[in-house]
Amino acid sequence: MKDVLTQLGDILEQRKAATAEKSYVASLHEKGLNKILEKVGEEATETILAAKDAQVSRDNSDVIYETADLWFHTLVALSHLGERPETVLNELARRFDMSGIEEKASRADK
Amino acid sequence: MKDVLTQLGDILEQRKAATAEKSYVASLHEKGLNKILEKVGEEATETILAAKDAQVSRDNSDVIYETADLWFHTLVALSHLGERPETVLNELARRFDMSGIEEKASRADK
Amino acid sequence: MKDVLTQLGDILEQRKAATAEKSYVASLHEKGLNKILEKVGEEATETILAAKDAQVSRDNSDVIYETADLWFHTLVALSHLGERPETVLNELARRFDMSGIEEKASRADK
Amino acid sequence: MKDVLTQLGDILEQRKAATAEKSYVASLHEKGLNKILEKVGEEATETILAAKDAQVSRDNSDVIYETADLWFHTLVALSHLGERPETVLNELARRFDMSGIEEKASRADK
Repeated sequence: MKDVLTQLGDILEQRKAATAEKSYVASLHEKGLNKILEKVGEEATETILAAKDAQVSRDNSDVIYETADLWFHTLVALSHLGERPETVLNELARRFDMSGIEEKASRADK
Repeated sequence: MKDVLTQLGDILEQRKAATAEKSYVASLHEKGLNKILEKVGEEATETILAAKDAQVSRDNSDVIYETADLWFHTLVALSHLGERPETVLNELARRFDMSGIEEKASRADK
Repeated sequence: MKDVLTQLGDILEQRKAATAEKSYVASLHEKGLNKILEKVGEEATETILAAKDAQVSRDNSDVIYETADLWFHTLVALSHLGERPETVLNELARRFDMSGIEEKASRADK
Repeated sequence: MKDVLTQLGDILEQRKAATAEKSYVASLHEKGLNKILEKVGEEATETILAAKDAQVSRDNSDVIYETADLWFHTLVALSHLGERPETVLNELARRFDMSGIEEKASRADK
């Protein structure tokens, strides 16, 4: 069973090839890397604002939503550059390998 | 077998309780939400710059590294607010459920 | 003769009181601080992207345009909080006072 | 009498030529455009966080300080690309010219 991000990587590759009218992802690729990175910047700001508001409201639903938006657009950027989500997970696993959990983390990539 | 982000969630919870001298994560929690969110903003900018440079150099290693940094710090922010990485994955899965791949995506959360 | 930013401060105060249909500034104030700060984040990203592109194209027109957009939206944020552009100029003048150019800089505020 | 930003432009040009040990500005130029733009991104985030906090605390001193930092680093970026602060003021004046205050705004550039 593939994990969520691996599946999302598959979907992003499919949508990259779709027509821009049918797919938000295809329309981003058509507009180019700057447009995708503008979205990354926007979603980072919205995540930050949502986290500040969550600290007051004690309601985390917006910050979860905005973080998902932020990750999603970073994955579109990586897809635009020809990379898959697994490369980010591998990098995170590698780092924590160095912190002594390598066996579990490296297994997780299999 | 837990996936990488679930394991990372476990590690982040352990480190939250560590002493600040021993753990970068604990030191971030001690400095507070603003400091964590400053890091999110910094890493977003570094991801954007790395993506622009990757477009020229055709070398994606920095953009993968910076994206991992960005995701990591968003997870520290969520942990500070009491949330786990799985909430972001569930949100991403939920969205793509709506786009017609629900069976696979919902299984992935089990 | 008032300088550009002082004049802009006057205009921003007038527009704050306008109706949202007639004025972009009034519509931002009506939407609230988060919306204004989202624009600050967007324009910061666009400035960064324009600067990267200018380094390749040797054409600075976009980066000047985006920097003006960024400054403009920070001034709308300050106006929303009840501050004028002069406070930023005074802060910049004060800093360079401390770096040994105080006479000229302090005169500039008169 | 030159205005604050024109004076600041003069200072930034002088410091560009200074040695990196003696001048923060010279050290930024030596590190290059990416480092300068990272600072722009950092200061944008700090401005946003300070504005959110000001909304609660009703104390604007931090947001003024961070906005000055943000403007300062955008001016270092423009200086790195060979531009002066006046180009941003001219762009702002030009825009408000179009909104019907041209006479005063264009005079301000002389």
